[in-house]
Amino acid sequence: MLASMSTSPSLLSQPRTAAIIGVGLLGGSVGLSLRKQWPELTVIGTSRTAATRDAAVAAGCVTSATADEHAACEAADWVFLCTPVGRIAEKAIELAPCVAETGIITDVGSTKRQIVEQIERDLVARSKFVGSHPIAGGEKTGPQHAREDLFQAKQVIVTPTAQTDSRRLAAVCQLWQLLGANVQTLSPERHDERLAGISHATHFASCAIASILRDEEIPLIGSGWRDTTRVAAGDPQMWTDIALQNALPIAARLRAIQTQLDAFIRVMESGDQETLKNLLTEAQQLRQGVPTPSAVSVADSDC
Amino acid sequence: MLASMSTSPSLLSQPRTAAIIGVGLLGGSVGLSLRKQWPELTVIGTSRTAATRDAAVAAGCVTSATADEHAACEAADWVFLCTPVGRIAEKAIELAPCVAETGIITDVGSTKRQIVEQIERDLVARSKFVGSHPIAGGEKTGPQHAREDLFQAKQVIVTPTAQTDSRRLAAVCQLWQLLGANVQTLSPERHDERLAGISHATHFASCAIASILRDEEIPLIGSGWRDTTRVAAGDPQMWTDIALQNALPIAARLRAIQTQLDAFIRVMESGDQETLKNLLTEAQQLRQGVPTPSAVSVADSDC
Repeated sequence: MLASMSTSPSLLSQPRTAAIIGVGLLGGSVGLSLRKQWPELTVIGTSRTAATRDAAVAAGCVTSATADEHAACEAADWVFLCTPVGRIAEKAIELAPCVAETGIITDVGSTKRQIVEQIERDLVARSKFVGSHPIAGGEKTGPQHAREDLFQAKQVIVTPTAQTDSRRLAAVCQLWQLLGANVQTLSPERHDERLAGISHATHFASCAIASILRDEEIPLIGSGWRDTTRVAAGDPQMWTDIALQNALPIAARLRAIQTQLDAFIRVMESGDQETLKNLLTEAQQLRQGVPTPSAVSVADSDC
Repeated sequence: MLASMSTSPSLLSQPRTAAIIGVGLLGGSVGLSLRKQWPELTVIGTSRTAATRDAAVAAGCVTSATADEHAACEAADWVFLCTPVGRIAEKAIELAPCVAETGIITDVGSTKRQIVEQIERDLVARSKFVGSHPIAGGEKTGPQHAREDLFQAKQVIVTPTAQTDSRRLAAVCQLWQLLGANVQTLSPERHDERLAGISHATHFASCAIASILRDEEIPLIGSGWRDTTRVAAGDPQMWTDIALQNALPIAARLRAIQTQLDAFIRVMESGDQETLKNLLTEAQQLRQGVPTPSAVSVADSDC
């Protein structure tokens, strides 16, 4: 992959300056990974909060930090929008005119349909934007928890449409691959539909499990409960934003989970051992059929 | 704790021979931990399956293995019942007359109310039995996956009743502590009520999440889905047995999870950001309020 990169002319061949709009956990990790890949790269991080800017510089996520997003974008040939999903589209539209003609804007948002639709209504933003979603993160927020290997062996979904510039699409796919990710392309609609099940509804179901915890049960907690509810510690504002951008697909998948719970309740109350075992076997087989992360092939990429 | 052990006369002071009825993952781990603590101890494992007996010996879980449970119990001053929960009570009643007058019978079952009730209807079994539930395990089964540190820093619930012999109760609590566990006592009813929420309903909810997986979503799976559904890979027969022994408390907690899911669905469909964020914040706080395993104190023990 690296060999073909060096011989094919690409927008990615000589990145000089990257701007990271919103240097939190994900933005900070983009910065660390970029700097590991290209040690000479200038990486400008932005945040409205001075403490976040300082933390991003201290953690080595960026070479400098500023509150001035326009200035950061004017200097950059790559712009990464790492704000909460509710602000990505407006930022793309606001900042696109500052970005060089040949510049590339991408993002790390967990939802894509609304973001891409809104951006594509703006001619300037549309010409420079390619949507991305790295399926990576953590419960902790802030650049101090950023990791240079956060995207290593992770899935990144790139979401082109008929409007997407093909050279920028190729460059964005290559960039994530160079940061260690397995890249797939999907339409924004398909992305949101599939993420509703595999990520968003899973998150809310995990929160529902955590929500019924009673004080007296805490001393009995084992690793099963801990793992099943790990994601429930995630940022409430971030997940509120995600839910509002993908509400109907998520609600549909939560109803599917409720239907499964209904089936469990019914067979437990009737004492129907055989059906209960069949339902559990089905869940076990689905879970066991999922390849472990190391078994996921880079050949998944279809850029 | 060790110092007081050596000076107080205890049934535990000189264990000579342990019988492990059912040397699977848990039984095998009991054997490994006992042998680590008392290298001279004779540990006899039983299984109906020759391959399991061979694997238990090969893994060092036991000093010998046999299909003859009666003979194993006749030689033992400690008997650990590590069969599926549906067979623990009948095994206790069947084997109690073989166990020495001063012998101790305990178990590792994940449910307690039905098991203890049934055992206490039998005079001989009742006099020797103390119920235990180590909150430890794994998705993999068989003695080849046993671990000598499986109980280290884990919770073990011991479930005495008014009928339980107090010296045996003290000995069982001490034994689990020596194997590294934090020991708590609870009535069998309270145990089952609390485990229904923290473990059993959590398991079935995790299975419900795994059950709605669609093929096309598999390449998008991230660590969130993996962790949330980890326990769904558990043994269907074992969880069928557990569900049938604790059906009504589990069903009640699954309904509580459904009610939370209803709330999420309602606020997503209405776009009520504030309520959604409040629900997520509540789940986050409950999750974050749970101490990490290393922070759980041995002082939890109330034996």
